[in-house]
Amino acid sequence: MKFGIVARRDRMEALKLAYRVYDFLKISGFDVVVDEDTYKHLREFNEEDVLPLEEFEVDVIVVIGGDGTILRVEHKTKKEVPILGINMGTLGFLTEVEPHETFFALSRVIEGEYYIDERIKLRTFIDGEQKGPDSLNEVAILTGIPGKIIHLKYYVDGGLADEIRADGLIVSTPTGSTGYAMSAGGPFVDPRLEVIVIAPLAPIALSSRPMVVPSSSVIDVRNLAMTREVILTIDGQFYTYLPPETEIRITKSPRKAKFVRFSKEIYPKYTMKLKGRF
Amino acid sequence: MKFGIVARRDRMEALKLAYRVYDFLKISGFDVVVDEDTYKHLREFNEEDVLPLEEFEVDVIVVIGGDGTILRVEHKTKKEVPILGINMGTLGFLTEVEPHETFFALSRVIEGEYYIDERIKLRTFIDGEQKGPDSLNEVAILTGIPGKIIHLKYYVDGGLADEIRADGLIVSTPTGSTGYAMSAGGPFVDPRLEVIVIAPLAPIALSSRPMVVPSSSVIDVRNLAMTREVILTIDGQFYTYLPPETEIRITKSPRKAKFVRFSKEIYPKYTMKLKGRF
Amino acid sequence: MKFGIVARRDRMEALKLAYRVYDFLKISGFDVVVDEDTYKHLREFNEEDVLPLEEFEVDVIVVIGGDGTILRVEHKTKKEVPILGINMGTLGFLTEVEPHETFFALSRVIEGEYYIDERIKLRTFIDGEQKGPDSLNEVAILTGIPGKIIHLKYYVDGGLADEIRADGLIVSTPTGSTGYAMSAGGPFVDPRLEVIVIAPLAPIALSSRPMVVPSSSVIDVRNLAMTREVILTIDGQFYTYLPPETEIRITKSPRKAKFVRFSKEIYPKYTMKLKGRF
Amino acid sequence: MKFGIVARRDRMEALKLAYRVYDFLKISGFDVVVDEDTYKHLREFNEEDVLPLEEFEVDVIVVIGGDGTILRVEHKTKKEVPILGINMGTLGFLTEVEPHETFFALSRVIEGEYYIDERIKLRTFIDGEQKGPDSLNEVAILTGIPGKIIHLKYYVDGGLADEIRADGLIVSTPTGSTGYAMSAGGPFVDPRLEVIVIAPLAPIALSSRPMVVPSSSVIDVRNLAMTREVILTIDGQFYTYLPPETEIRITKSPRKAKFVRFSKEIYPKYTMKLKGRF
Repeated sequence: MKFGIVARRDRMEALKLAYRVYDFLKISGFDVVVDEDTYKHLREFNEEDVLPLEEFEVDVIVVIGGDGTILRVEHKTKKEVPILGINMGTLGFLTEVEPHETFFALSRVIEGEYYIDERIKLRTFIDGEQKGPDSLNEVAILTGIPGKIIHLKYYVDGGLADEIRADGLIVSTPTGSTGYAMSAGGPFVDPRLEVIVIAPLAPIALSSRPMVVPSSSVIDVRNLAMTREVILTIDGQFYTYLPPETEIRITKSPRKAKFVRFSKEIYPKYTMKLKGRF
Repeated sequence: MKFGIVARRDRMEALKLAYRVYDFLKISGFDVVVDEDTYKHLREFNEEDVLPLEEFEVDVIVVIGGDGTILRVEHKTKKEVPILGINMGTLGFLTEVEPHETFFALSRVIEGEYYIDERIKLRTFIDGEQKGPDSLNEVAILTGIPGKIIHLKYYVDGGLADEIRADGLIVSTPTGSTGYAMSAGGPFVDPRLEVIVIAPLAPIALSSRPMVVPSSSVIDVRNLAMTREVILTIDGQFYTYLPPETEIRITKSPRKAKFVRFSKEIYPKYTMKLKGRF
Repeated sequence: MKFGIVARRDRMEALKLAYRVYDFLKISGFDVVVDEDTYKHLREFNEEDVLPLEEFEVDVIVVIGGDGTILRVEHKTKKEVPILGINMGTLGFLTEVEPHETFFALSRVIEGEYYIDERIKLRTFIDGEQKGPDSLNEVAILTGIPGKIIHLKYYVDGGLADEIRADGLIVSTPTGSTGYAMSAGGPFVDPRLEVIVIAPLAPIALSSRPMVVPSSSVIDVRNLAMTREVILTIDGQFYTYLPPETEIRITKSPRKAKFVRFSKEIYPKYTMKLKGRF
Repeated sequence: MKFGIVARRDRMEALKLAYRVYDFLKISGFDVVVDEDTYKHLREFNEEDVLPLEEFEVDVIVVIGGDGTILRVEHKTKKEVPILGINMGTLGFLTEVEPHETFFALSRVIEGEYYIDERIKLRTFIDGEQKGPDSLNEVAILTGIPGKIIHLKYYVDGGLADEIRADGLIVSTPTGSTGYAMSAGGPFVDPRLEVIVIAPLAPIALSSRPMVVPSSSVIDVRNLAMTREVILTIDGQFYTYLPPETEIRITKSPRKAKFVRFSKEIYPKYTMKLKGRF
């Protein structure tokens, strides 16, 4: 069994815990690789174990951080490697255990006592070409100028779903349903579902509503403005500006995200986290 | 091929069109039965062709009316018979054709040029016993006293999904997503999906949100009040009062609703109807 | 200075604190009257000091309980007497102090170190006749049959404001804006404002929105159904059934509610309480 | 009586009607000045009657266009001149008459048969200095990077009203309540009211709600991010980027906007327009 280790770079606590995980796994006789960016912020790892995320070929990646760190791993790794998330963020919808449970969790992974929780991702095509990383949370098509509405049409499987004047449009996975899509008025979606949420962001028309469509849907978005650029952002991390005539297509990715879980519990695990947000 | 005919009883126009359909099908040589309630409002049908809905054994039921008439047919018939809905209601989310297309539609049915659109239904169990008809739209658990909130807990597959103080809770099929569930803030759900929407109605807590769960989910609802009754209503037609200790369980029914369709179009067919509501 | 005392009747703690307040005020030489209903639940008060709320003629009423107890006092007393609310409820938007601050608060009242916070109330007229108590929170016009929508038109100063098919309509004071009106999607309204919130409850039309109008507005509501009764409820306590043709008019009452306050603080006092609701 | 004339510059129809109004008023013997920008797009006006908006000293300004053109006039003129708006836009919440009523409306103005409808405006102070034009609709504080939330605290009269993580915050007049504030979930506000609406835009916390406060309130907004810029925009026309430490203050302006009206009707005039938006 081979492990990868990634930590959020802006918290010494996370970096230190990453080193303790590294040390524990090495001593236990496992192959371990450490993310290059993590290493840059804590030079104590053996340099020969350091690799860029893009070159990770491991069985499990231990991620110490928040949902943002997990997104970074998802966007950069090339293989569908299961992630064990140790929560050093604020809410941790994606992470599985708290820091004090780290070594107990590692033991269970080593003994094979875990589930794999698979989540769909979205792929974006710009004028027919794949663009950016697959999205674990959402693809957002936003006004290029904050406060100036954009005029969009969107289609599901070729049929016009709606025409909106709005700040933007959020196309979200079930995983992303508790994020930007929910701020836009979308529902909580059970992570077991193979669906996509489409939610207009601050639409002018009061009758424009979030919708839930099959994950097999082909979603096409058209910017109707002659001159106004839109921004396309993937998981709030990848950004691109698109001129008016651009054809945007979003479909389910053939790749999935995989998470190590020790329980199949969904309720109240995810729904109660919604209450704690501020 | 054997046909059944049902019309809404409060519009002479619908009853008359029902008779013309009856006449056309009889002359064309088909077996036809007419719903007893329809007959009570227009005595022109041959009495020997009249039957209660519960005894219909036909291949297609032609329903002339609105979504309410279709719900009545769904609740009373015992078999999963495809319904051809001719719109004499206001919006007609379930009906397929307008009155002037009636005979064109019948010809296509006779020639076998149609699709069957299958929709899930929900089954309700009260203290372990099946209760009321299967729901095509939604099961609503509502305060027994309008304006007095009820205190509910609801569970998905045994896990606590939320605890609410609210006017009620709507548990809806995709078909019902454009109805009561949407008034409660729920999303539009693509009718192809096998999901259930759970939407709190006017909850006190601003953090209680609609959720979308797999249609295979077992949904349990508990009334936490010691003394306050709740009302359980199915599709706005079946009503029952439930004392506080009652155990309410909602699951997908093994039965489906079937509709005759001439096109597989969903967008903008259903989404644009939302705009027209007043 | 003459005091009145009222406690919530279902909590011994509140009744006991009421007795301690009574004892303290008597020993301090003040005239004190005790609410008859409070006395029925704790027989320790001197019988000669007991009076029904309707006959209270005092300078300050000390209310030990939650917002519900305050509403009861507001509905029954005939004069505009300032209320000092001691919180023995859950949230306490109207109460001013916590139980442990009771005697400190009483001292300040005795020394005249307090403000009077005046709040508008709404008066309801049915077919031209005043009906029920003035409302401190809201007047709700609700479907008589839960789950069956009603069809209403409402007018502001004679002009048609909206026509809705909904579960009901909430007409709320600023005080009530954090209550039923907010569950219906209404905004938080600064209690200093002289405005009325009108919020449709679960409307079918997605374009029907809450509105804020001057407190001087005359609000007329018409039930358009031929046969369906509506329920009119005032502050969730007074109920009446109204047949279809009834003319409902709501205006600002000439009477105000008055509360003893020790601080003029509004923010974050009221806004932060919204966060704590479950 | 002296008139000013302004037309939207991108519609020949509006420019031509402006010329007809100019011609009619000149022939009728009135002093007329024409906006310089209007003249640049239609050279037929006498050059000696052309002036920049900033130098208009007239009794009534006739504005032919949509709400955008009216905002331009409001932002540039120095005096509180009543505006007669002739609708050549889409919805026209601010304009009073349709093009075919133009000369009838002018006659009534000349005869003095009209009302003045006064609307409050908001003034913005950045680090203590007045900045930008007074706002007729709203001041929006928005994320500088679309899709990246900002972290704001806002205060009403010195008290913390809320702390949000959101796309932005809308501070709106009653006039602006049907615009951006409504897209953010705010209520319709009767234009006669002296209030301000504060509405968070796509907040993460589900418990953050729009609020309505007195127009006399001092509203302070703080950007809590260390590094992230915010955009402040006034009526969607004036833009400025603000570094993190900036102190933003919004208060009612001493100036009002004035509109020529021929009727005092508010309902259904304004509320029904909400229904027509797409």
